[in-house]
Parts: sequence; structure tokens; C-alpha cells
Amino acid sequence: MKHKITDASFKIIDLSRTLSSDISTFQQGVSPEISLAHTIEKEGFNETKILLYSHNGTHIDAPYHVLKDGKSLDKLGLDYFMGDSFCIDVSNVKNNLIEIENLISFKDDIKKSDFLLLYTGRAKFWKTAKYFDPYPVFSKDAAQFLGDFSLKGIGIDAYSFDAIDANALPVHNVFLKKNIILIENLCNLKKLINSHFIFCCFPLKFENADGSPTRAVAII
Amino acid sequence: MKHKITDASFKIIDLSRTLSSDISTFQQGVSPEISLAHTIEKEGFNETKILLYSHNGTHIDAPYHVLKDGKSLDKLGLDYFMGDSFCIDVSNVKNNLIEIENLISFKDDIKKSDFLLLYTGRAKFWKTAKYFDPYPVFSKDAAQFLGDFSLKGIGIDAYSFDAIDANALPVHNVFLKKNIILIENLCNLKKLINSHFIFCCFPLKFENADGSPTRAVAII
Repeated sequence: MKHKITDASFKIIDLSRTLSSDISTFQQGVSPEISLAHTIEKEGFNETKILLYSHNGTHIDAPYHVLKDGKSLDKLGLDYFMGDSFCIDVSNVKNNLIEIENLISFKDDIKKSDFLLLYTGRAKFWKTAKYFDPYPVFSKDAAQFLGDFSLKGIGIDAYSFDAIDANALPVHNVFLKKNIILIENLCNLKKLINSHFIFCCFPLKFENADGSPTRAVAII
Repeated sequence: MKHKITDASFKIIDLSRTLSSDISTFQQGVSPEISLAHTIEKEGFNETKILLYSHNGTHIDAPYHVLKDGKSLDKLGLDYFMGDSFCIDVSNVKNNLIEIENLISFKDDIKKSDFLLLYTGRAKFWKTAKYFDPYPVFSKDAAQFLGDFSLKGIGIDAYSFDAIDANALPVHNVFLKKNIILIENLCNLKKLINSHFIFCCFPLKFENADGSPTRAVAII
């Protein structure tokens, strides 16, 4: 019989943001609203009303987010949301552009992985205006290069995979067309740089999910 | 280097209900509302507005659900939501009452487990009035007996751990006072009966979470 997980050498690291009305959102009118609907005093139990948008906080983008005929999260098998992962540091790339040369030396690590996570150094600006200042994004060549690995998903601890002023989300398109899901607004990636671990980002289950908030974790 | 999870013998089973406006809820006025807020046609991307209550669908009850000074889910470490698990069949217990005698022969299996899941045979009535007909619940003695194991949580594929007409949620109280979290409205448990597996039920991350919808899964 196997030992209990927590008795063994497993450790779970939380890579997710707390959902609240003041989280970083660039669009207007899509902030979460979380409030008590029932209370122990009145009804005998606490219950919370949770209003979210599918791309709030730490969340997954499905192909259906930008592609009319793209798959929604509910059409992907659950094994799409868990797998071996590797994290790289892109915080110091020139001109905030991640090029093939920033990826090539990690080729073997990426090959062995289902997910690649990107440490951008921008997570510390969460909930401030600076979170929307330029952050590292892939060049078109680098996105194509990475898209040719057999990744299930790519995660980033910044606001988006496209620049805030990008037209038509070109990087999203490269990856989502290849059914590579995108996880945005991660945190706590620094301690994972250059290491292999299990990444897990199960979505909420609803039909035609163009995206979903997720409790993303690393299991090491 | 470890193989990719999905290349190895791992398999993920979905134990969660799809969230929609017609899911089974006994209370009035707490149904989810899920609608498109933005579309590819209009804004260039799909985005969904998700209104949920913390005890909708497949969800976790925190001690703070019924105990004023009880812990909320955000106060529990993430390792509280994953662990070795065992599933028992309680679908044929007499008078829908789970007694110590129904548990005692699984003593060693429960001892090795972080979670115990209960197959009630009632999951097939989901979204029908029969889902609220009497379903198996613990006798007070059985709840006390089970509460003395070192479980993190107990899950059930029925509406609640207390009878629909129970006063003051006595079974909830026994477990939640011991910081044993409760997972309700699971599904797909039949194939897990009498087997050991990893159970995983990460909650949404928000403050003072009395409960949370979760994408509960079994990893075998």
C-alpha cells in the first residue's frame, strides 16, 4: 500500500491569485464580485455569491476564446489539465521579446514536458498600474518554434501572452490554433525556475467554456 | 527523467457535475447563471459571465459553512485538497442510515486514506425531483466513529451529508468541527468502489470561503 501523499515527499505550491473585486483587469466592467448571500445568523449557514468572468484572475484560455471553431475547455479531456512541467526565466529578455535563442537551450526540458511556465518577474506588480506596462511576449518566430513541441499548455505570471496594445491577439492565435491552452496571471513561479514538476490547472466545468478561472498548482 | 504523466499509467476520472442553470438545488434562488459577456463577432474574443453560489454543483463545505469560528477554505493548506482515497458502497444501507457496522470492515482502508468517498447510488437522479428523496446519511454514532480517523475530507454523490429535512445539520457539525471538509454532489463514483486512488478537489481561491465549487477528480 502506498503511503499517504502528504507523508511522502510531495509538496503543493499555490500558483493562483486570490479572486476579489480589486484584482488586475485591463478591460472595464469584468471584475469579480464576491459577497455573502446567506449567513449563520440569518439562515443557519454561510453561503457566498460569486460573480466571475471566465478570464478573471489565474485562468485558462481555450481555443474557443479567440477561434470560432476552436475547442472549448469542456471538449478537452481532463488529462489536458495536468502534466509534467518546466519553468524558465524570461524576466530579462531584450525589448520584452522572447526569441528562439531564449528557448533553444531548454529544448530537451521542453520536449519532456506537457506544460512550459514562464517567469516574467512582473507578478510583483499585480494589482498596480505597472502590471500593464510592457511584459515579455513571444516573437512570432519563437511562438511558432514553441508551438511545434507537443505541449498541452503554456503558463505565464503576467497579464497576457500578447502585448496590451496588440492587434488581434497574434500570439494567442498561434498557440490556440494548435490546441495549446494558455494559463495567465500565475504567481509564485520564481521558486520553480529551471525545475521539473507536475502542473495542474483543472477548470470549472461548464458548457462552451472559452476559458475558466483555475486553482493552478505545482506538485513537487 | 520521469515519463510524462499521461504516457505512464495515470488516468484521470472526472467526478464533477457540469454547472448550469438547471442543476439540482434544493434552496430557491441560488442557481448558477452562465452567459456570454463578450463574443468573437463583437469584441474579437469570447468571454463568459459566471454567477455561482459557493455550494452549487460539485462543491466543498468548509467548517466556516456552519461554524462561526470555523476555518474557511482559504485558511487550509493546499495539501488539504489532495490525498489518498478510498470509496465504499453505501447504496443499500438499511433505512438510508450508514451505521458503524457499514464502516468497520473498511477500517484499515480508511486508516490509510486522506479522503473517504461514498457511493450512494443516487447520482442517477441528478436534475430530477428524486434527487431530494431520502439518501444515505450517517447515524450520529457512525459520524463520530469516522470523525476519529485522520481524514482530510469525506465526499458523497448525493445532495448533502444531512437529510433534506434535518434540523441544524448535525452530521455536517460533527465533521466540520473536526476540520474534515465535505464534498457534495460528486458523480462517477461507481467505478471507484473498494479501490484506492488519489482524490483532488482544489477550491476557487477567495477570502472567507465557506465553500467552493470544485473540479473534483480521481487519479488512478
